[in-house]
Amino acid sequence: MTTDIDVTADRRQRSADTELRRRAKAVVPNGMYGHENMNAFPAIPQFIARSRGARLWDVDGNEYVDLMCSWGPVILGHGDPVVDAAAEEQRRQGDCLNGPAPVMVELAETFVETVADADWAMFAKNGTDATTMCCTIARAQTGRTMILVAEGAYHGAAPWCTPFPAGVTAADRANLLQYQFNDVASIRAAVGDRAGDVAAIIVSPFRHDAGYDQEFVDPTFARDVRAYCDEIGAALILDDVRAGFRLHHGGSWEPLGVPVDLTPWSKAIANGYPLAAVTGTDRYRDAAGGIFVTGSFWMGAVDMAAGLATLTELARRDSVSRMRDLGQHLRTGIVASAERWGFDVHYTGPAQMPNLLFGNDSDYELSIAFSAEAQARGVYVHPKHNWFVSAAMTDGDLDMALTGLDGAFAALRARYPRS
Amino acid sequence: MTTDIDVTADRRQRSADTELRRRAKAVVPNGMYGHENMNAFPAIPQFIARSRGARLWDVDGNEYVDLMCSWGPVILGHGDPVVDAAAEEQRRQGDCLNGPAPVMVELAETFVETVADADWAMFAKNGTDATTMCCTIARAQTGRTMILVAEGAYHGAAPWCTPFPAGVTAADRANLLQYQFNDVASIRAAVGDRAGDVAAIIVSPFRHDAGYDQEFVDPTFARDVRAYCDEIGAALILDDVRAGFRLHHGGSWEPLGVPVDLTPWSKAIANGYPLAAVTGTDRYRDAAGGIFVTGSFWMGAVDMAAGLATLTELARRDSVSRMRDLGQHLRTGIVASAERWGFDVHYTGPAQMPNLLFGNDSDYELSIAFSAEAQARGVYVHPKHNWFVSAAMTDGDLDMALTGLDGAFAALRARYPRS
Repeated sequence: MTTDIDVTADRRQRSADTELRRRAKAVVPNGMYGHENMNAFPAIPQFIARSRGARLWDVDGNEYVDLMCSWGPVILGHGDPVVDAAAEEQRRQGDCLNGPAPVMVELAETFVETVADADWAMFAKNGTDATTMCCTIARAQTGRTMILVAEGAYHGAAPWCTPFPAGVTAADRANLLQYQFNDVASIRAAVGDRAGDVAAIIVSPFRHDAGYDQEFVDPTFARDVRAYCDEIGAALILDDVRAGFRLHHGGSWEPLGVPVDLTPWSKAIANGYPLAAVTGTDRYRDAAGGIFVTGSFWMGAVDMAAGLATLTELARRDSVSRMRDLGQHLRTGIVASAERWGFDVHYTGPAQMPNLLFGNDSDYELSIAFSAEAQARGVYVHPKHNWFVSAAMTDGDLDMALTGLDGAFAALRARYPRS
Repeated sequence: MTTDIDVTADRRQRSADTELRRRAKAVVPNGMYGHENMNAFPAIPQFIARSRGARLWDVDGNEYVDLMCSWGPVILGHGDPVVDAAAEEQRRQGDCLNGPAPVMVELAETFVETVADADWAMFAKNGTDATTMCCTIARAQTGRTMILVAEGAYHGAAPWCTPFPAGVTAADRANLLQYQFNDVASIRAAVGDRAGDVAAIIVSPFRHDAGYDQEFVDPTFARDVRAYCDEIGAALILDDVRAGFRLHHGGSWEPLGVPVDLTPWSKAIANGYPLAAVTGTDRYRDAAGGIFVTGSFWMGAVDMAAGLATLTELARRDSVSRMRDLGQHLRTGIVASAERWGFDVHYTGPAQMPNLLFGNDSDYELSIAFSAEAQARGVYVHPKHNWFVSAAMTDGDLDMALTGLDGAFAALRARYPRS
């Protein structure tokens, strides 16, 4: 299905993209909104025409190796035939019905079998649905109100958590306290004498705030935050929306041996079909059953069938290992290229979800220029947000990405000669 | 595709449904949650196996004429071939991508062409996403915080609007004021001297609160609430999530000639594919572009292609007229049956979205028993929530529904003899 990308092609001529941006501007505020809004990065195409495996094509026919995986969801590759066949088979039966289809039960059973800390599962459509549900469940179980979040961590785009304040009221944030990732003393300080009113502490599996170097969790911090939650009777929520099933086939803290109470999932659990989930322990089962949450499409059977096939295929193909291997080769190659061309790069985080920033580049000038050069050479990367390695990437895709990125470093060096 | 339903069949034996409920109980809190939870109505099957047109089949193979349309989304009928073909064609190109596909622009253009008060459109996944976005946009535009909602109205299931309080904090509701539907004096009274802090008033196109007789909007109320919003500088939000494209091909208040500022849509706009939208006027465009809202799957191109095909087919087939005609025949037949069997029924609301309750039945004993008898005769109705008439319903489906419902009244009379 894939072709060899001509890394010398000039992908900067984008008449179809320009025309669609113009039309979009008339009928969509700003022409685009949210995390896929490329207004700030004009060198990145806004509109994508098609995709297959670890490749995608913009609306002007330019081909790319995809290192963003649709910002996380597409873990097995675009158009995975096994997932799509399972979804299509369910669609022939029915999708959005008056009640759930049997696949809801199979999917919940699969989560409970796969995730160490899952005694039950619930399903929704957005990662934000799932993070919000975890807060509501924790509040219902504890009868408390406060939620602790790490400063700068992204947990969704509802008023209580969206990173930009427009239209958000003080009341939306009234029950939040902030701490510093990997710093349990900052949690104790934020809580102060309000321990009896803390419903939950939300943690990310590792620090993956866009625009910052990524940071692994300190295992001592993980154990300490678990112990602190037990001490004060608060729920520990592990936000696995972005990292789930990329670091471990199960909860991302399972390799640390640190159990959690509630876990929101979304992104990669259905290979791009819209699905989110919450899993939790028996301690939170009654509270989870006592809150009222729902959506018109939450029981959509096609997306659940895709989710079931995705979890099954991830295990069968040992995809986590494959993504880690690919990611390690990518890191080795990129770090070598950066050194060859004399750039101080910060290549941080797990191999499967790397982030590339440059030293002394606080305004992102170099990372934006680098991503533009990469796009021009057929490698789709983002200048600030972490990338995602696809399990569908072939060794050929990897070589193509490394060739294109080496060319991007070379072009960047031409634009910024060594002083 | 459809068969004649044997209305004498006993659909009360449901071994497969019972077994799935048992398995679900182990891995999902309460076995099911949200609006599709049938724990309170054991005579209604919980699990649905398949569907086609205006028919569906439970997991025990029992066939039903579908008068719920998946609680609203399935407007053109289950598995509509035109919608499914458009979705499948888009899937062959790509679905969840690094940016939107061109279909986003086409869909936004179609909303702007179709809806009188739409100068722009944005897309999401849940009706709750859309109602919440409208509040955020109104707050961003006005710099104010308070939102007025009608007492008992359903605007979604996020903490600020969910109808049940478990896990909801006082801060979640701190910026809400309540009024009575169709009573502009109650709006003025609720606002009092806080007019300068009112961001928006949310209204439903008609009163469709589950468990209550439905109530049409008084055109004078609609005009007065519009004038009051203009007087105080607040946004008028028409919550068309449930009724959108069932009463009018466009905004539900267009036939009244009353313009609105912001409209959340979902349910029927993509015939069951998960999609929601917000439309608004130019006055709110900059505010809409200034808020940060997003979701991993919001730009999913397959669901947008389904939405585009749905809006196109609804217009081409003149589906609103068809649903109204079917609904009027349904009403005539049901009211005649009720009279024949001597029941005082309240059959309220638009013909396309009727609600059937019984007089002197405040605990819903009669309506629950009636819906159980209807289910047993192959007619899928709900005892408390409004029903939805499918545009796919054939005259044969209609006859089948009326025969089954007449039998349900007869059986109800046998259980409750005339005194």
